[in-house]
Amino acid sequence: MNGVNMNSEPLTNCRFVKEEHISNGDWLSLAKITYLDQRGIPRVWEDATRLTRNEDTAPDAVGIIAFYRRLLHYDCIILVKQYRPALKAYTIEMPAGPIEGNEAPDMAAVRELKEATGFVGVIKKIGPVLAMDPGASNCSMRLVTVEVNGDEPENWHLKSNVNNERFREPLLIPVSELLDKLRAFAAAGFIIDSRIDAFAIGLVMGNHSRKTKIPTTLL
Amino acid sequence: MNGVNMNSEPLTNCRFVKEEHISNGDWLSLAKITYLDQRGIPRVWEDATRLTRNEDTAPDAVGIIAFYRRLLHYDCIILVKQYRPALKAYTIEMPAGPIEGNEAPDMAAVRELKEATGFVGVIKKIGPVLAMDPGASNCSMRLVTVEVNGDEPENWHLKSNVNNERFREPLLIPVSELLDKLRAFAAAGFIIDSRIDAFAIGLVMGNHSRKTKIPTTLL
Repeated sequence: MNGVNMNSEPLTNCRFVKEEHISNGDWLSLAKITYLDQRGIPRVWEDATRLTRNEDTAPDAVGIIAFYRRLLHYDCIILVKQYRPALKAYTIEMPAGPIEGNEAPDMAAVRELKEATGFVGVIKKIGPVLAMDPGASNCSMRLVTVEVNGDEPENWHLKSNVNNERFREPLLIPVSELLDKLRAFAAAGFIIDSRIDAFAIGLVMGNHSRKTKIPTTLL
Repeated sequence: MNGVNMNSEPLTNCRFVKEEHISNGDWLSLAKITYLDQRGIPRVWEDATRLTRNEDTAPDAVGIIAFYRRLLHYDCIILVKQYRPALKAYTIEMPAGPIEGNEAPDMAAVRELKEATGFVGVIKKIGPVLAMDPGASNCSMRLVTVEVNGDEPENWHLKSNVNNERFREPLLIPVSELLDKLRAFAAAGFIIDSRIDAFAIGLVMGNHSRKTKIPTTLL
């Protein structure tokens, strides 16, 4: 039953036709897309596009799953608290930011983590291109897993970049408390980024699972 | 060190001032926001807004972490494959969709799952309001955990809604293979939704962890 399409209409016929820009801001553009659906019928969709994207590097941004480790201490996850004008609210997010110019995703991740927290991290894994909000925009990202050695003197102190226009306050949250802390931040009025929340739910479910059985009742 | 702000400038002074709509489409709007930063300096930001939001219900959409369970079978995660005009690509996502009218998030989740897959699910947990793309839009969602009893006759067959304009092909992926399957879909040219990818990374890390120690080297 895995992956079986039970419908007679194949999903392989959809096709992009054209894109018209309705309006351009300085950083974002609103566009109207015409495409053919699975039956060949032309349909219209709207989306928002980042004008800052470098077409050569493809994804707009990186999100960083950053582990902070010290000998004899609990492993922590590094998060950032910041004001997000688009949401008119303070958010709790994983460190993240745009890929600049021809930067490789791993370099962008190390740079963004350093800018937001002062920490020097080592890349563990770089994920595939992911959609930020597939229903409303073409914005994309890669998730990069980074490890920060808290026993190195350069990583002894949190140092957020106060000279940066976009002020971010770094947080260290014990891995075992991540989901609980996110729930507490949400209760206090912060808006949580959907990726760090999904990651935290996965961590808890994975921790409680017995091989392939996941106890959803625990969540 | 948890949650300690090492900076002298507090993050509590940021404030929304005004929002001007640059352009409205039929479903999306491009807006310019003026806000005060942590030093009281006025700054400008752009964002995309869904015009379909019901201000009373707050979040735009629900994303569904749906478990499919049958006696003596592996637990599966229910995903959907679909064409996304904004990305000009086929995507792999968790079932998701807009909250309609005054619908409660749990009702929206049950309805969307039924529309996309034909399955009847039971709500396990409803999460807080989450940001879809906090740097570029005010779009928000809730993650809802749903369990589908595959031993019930009504859930014996995948039935995607072919009458629906937005065609979606449901997939059942064994929980234990989720991350591997997502990597295979990405390698085949699909764009993966960032939330299901983050969830899958969390599941694997949680599965391998020994209490609070997470082996990032495994990913």
